[in-house]
Amino acid sequence: MLKEQFGIDFKKTELLDEAFTHASYVNEHPKENLKYYERIEFLGDAVMQLCVSEYLFIRFPNLPEGKLSRLRAAMVCEDSFSKFAVECSFDKYIRLGKGEEKAKARQRPSLLCDIFESFIGALYLDQGKTVVDQFIRQVVFPKIDLGWFDHLLDHKTELQEYLQRNGDVNIEYQELADFGPENDKSYQMTVSADGKTLGVGTGHSKKAAEQAAAKQALQTLLAAKRAD
Amino acid sequence: MLKEQFGIDFKKTELLDEAFTHASYVNEHPKENLKYYERIEFLGDAVMQLCVSEYLFIRFPNLPEGKLSRLRAAMVCEDSFSKFAVECSFDKYIRLGKGEEKAKARQRPSLLCDIFESFIGALYLDQGKTVVDQFIRQVVFPKIDLGWFDHLLDHKTELQEYLQRNGDVNIEYQELADFGPENDKSYQMTVSADGKTLGVGTGHSKKAAEQAAAKQALQTLLAAKRAD
Repeated sequence: MLKEQFGIDFKKTELLDEAFTHASYVNEHPKENLKYYERIEFLGDAVMQLCVSEYLFIRFPNLPEGKLSRLRAAMVCEDSFSKFAVECSFDKYIRLGKGEEKAKARQRPSLLCDIFESFIGALYLDQGKTVVDQFIRQVVFPKIDLGWFDHLLDHKTELQEYLQRNGDVNIEYQELADFGPENDKSYQMTVSADGKTLGVGTGHSKKAAEQAAAKQALQTLLAAKRAD
Repeated sequence: MLKEQFGIDFKKTELLDEAFTHASYVNEHPKENLKYYERIEFLGDAVMQLCVSEYLFIRFPNLPEGKLSRLRAAMVCEDSFSKFAVECSFDKYIRLGKGEEKAKARQRPSLLCDIFESFIGALYLDQGKTVVDQFIRQVVFPKIDLGWFDHLLDHKTELQEYLQRNGDVNIEYQELADFGPENDKSYQMTVSADGKTLGVGTGHSKKAAEQAAAKQALQTLLAAKRAD
């Protein structure tokens, strides 16, 4: 699965075994001299902290430290990690004791979060930081563009800081259209810089439509920059 | 100083400037378009977490996660980092505003801790993780052997786990001597594995002397392993 979906081929598969083994399984198999995931998870947690911090630091060059910290906290947390674990089908591979299985630990967010971190720890030990960066570039960072953390991001400010990093630029938002009935109206706004249209966005208020336009503009600009 | 003491030669010296500049200095020099250290410190904090976690994970292969976490928390904290900052003379290089200087911020542990982290962030951005690892191998990790974190380490258990990692070994502690007056006695104990003496330690109780002997044995064994 890892090989097909992510192109990852573990050299030391015993690290993967350790990453997916819960203490309850080890206790039920005392003769097999197994290791459970907690030590590798300890390492994986720190790997995620650094990879996410580094990405945010580079991606948002003008975001102050307080906002970077809030964004990191929203990304590096049980809620996010447990969703990533399920998305990667890691829940299917956990080796659990019978009691924990019965207690539905396999669906427990705290366990899924642990397993995501322990997988990252194993990947780091086996393949190094560059491969971890590639993996989370596929699994974690697209969620920023999908809007998971939009409540923490102000796209209009971000766009302004991006465009004005080398000097003054004239940014304008203009209404393109409104549609829908009076009690459920939607707006479409464009954003332009020095007269050039960069993005269009729709929302139930002009403000929301402006945020959506700024977000689209940023995505286009960053994609063009990456393609350079 | 960095060059002489640690062999570090920054390529982008503006990163070092940023790492050592406090917000109060930026506020007093509004025309110079300066950056203060907080964003770099955000990154440096995560770099330290990973470097320390990785070192502990490898150095203590048998320590359970709970003890690793307590050890990391004792190393990655204001108290430790502020001491490292002074040891590296970083306090001399901080650019502070006049008000903060008057308020003796230069000696404030929280600021010194921040500066140590921001330096690490700058070093990571400029030279990469390997150079950071080399730097903290000189500045941070020797403190483990100097006993800064001994209250969190049980050297006897650590030695036992190290020696018995590949099978059973007979470990014995024996009293070599006691000395001093009855109300202030000291003990000297040796530790041996399968009859071979590995370390000697002194303490005000037999238990303390055993811990000291185990610690010496571990240092000798690990130094020999590193020299291999």
